Amino acid sequence: MAPTNSDRVEHAQSSILRSARQEIETSGILGLRVAEVAAGANCSITQIYRYFGDRNGLLARVLGDMYAEILVATRDAYSAVLLQKQSITVDDIVAALPAVFEPGSSNLQHLRLQILAASVTNEELRARLEEITRDESDRWDEGLDEVENRLAPGESFDRRVFTIFLANFLPYYRILLGDKGFSSDEFRGFLRDKMSS
Amino acid sequence: MAPTNSDRVEHAQSSILRSARQEIETSGILGLRVAEVAAGANCSITQIYRYFGDRNGLLARVLGDMYAEILVATRDAYSAVLLQKQSITVDDIVAALPAVFEPGSSNLQHLRLQILAASVTNEELRARLEEITRDESDRWDEGLDEVENRLAPGESFDRRVFTIFLANFLPYYRILLGDKGFSSDEFRGFLRDKMSS
Repeated sequence: MAPTNSDRVEHAQSSILRSARQEIETSGILGLRVAEVAAGANCSITQIYRYFGDRNGLLARVLGDMYAEILVATRDAYSAVLLQKQSITVDDIVAALPAVFEPGSSNLQHLRLQILAASVTNEELRARLEEITRDESDRWDEGLDEVENRLAPGESFDRRVFTIFLANFLPYYRILLGDKGFSSDEFRGFLRDKMSS
Repeated sequence: MAPTNSDRVEHAQSSILRSARQEIETSGILGLRVAEVAAGANCSITQIYRYFGDRNGLLARVLGDMYAEILVATRDAYSAVLLQKQSITVDDIVAALPAVFEPGSSNLQHLRLQILAASVTNEELRARLEEITRDESDRWDEGLDEVENRLAPGESFDRRVFTIFLANFLPYYRILLGDKGFSSDEFRGFLRDKMSS
């Protein structure tokens, strides 16, 4: 079958989004230039404006997608480990948490920080992040319901450690503290204590 | 007495810093242009480069100063309320916390977020933030020692709620959640429970 018009639009849009991501990886969010994105996607600047409005609209789409991917991947990886178990203890809940302070995770933290900061001055991105964050919050609520259902006898679990603490945890300050900051073990010990009391 | 050369340098530097702040307030961190700062300070661009190296150096100085001021002001306001008391309860500790979710505080949160994000790509700023954060961490330790010394009989206080949780708390996610987010009362209730257990 010959490609339809909507196939062509979809193909052009995904080339643009791919090129924009590559630009962000090379030049950073601030360095993203629409002309470079167009060159990388083999299309015209006019075409980008037609699909995404303006530079902010393009950023809202690409950064919103990246933000959603980070959140979904984090939640998926967590559920995959935890919900294997039929009976869950607080130790299991803590052990399944991602190792946010390990080397290699700081690039991800930096990216997340830059996306959040970009949304302060980009209303379209801000609206998108609000939508994604609210949706993710619902998914976490469902996951935490499931965890409570499977809680091993005698275990108690305070889900506010997720909904209030971990949801608003930004390890960037921990990163700035370097050797003066708390260790992964101290962090997990704290979480274990606070979840079960 | 006639102004000495070092008086003149100091005067020129503070005019530049004042002008840079004004530019940031008007055009944002990303919009700061050295030429505008020079015009506002009644000096030449060359002079700015002589004192601060480059645009990043100027930003490192101005944003570092702003970051330090935010942290010091938060800590000072907190100590002023809390250390008035000779005998301190966990309820006092919670009540003295700043109202981070109140309207009007979100500008401050946005600014802090933008400064942190800017430091990802500005090494000089990053080094400055590390120094300030470590120094502030020492000041908090001293303050928390004092709180523990004055703890009312029968009260127990887990300082990790400050050193691990509040030190890494970024209410921006709470802001994105809007009406779906937890309330100030829920937040304070959580802190009260976790501090005393």
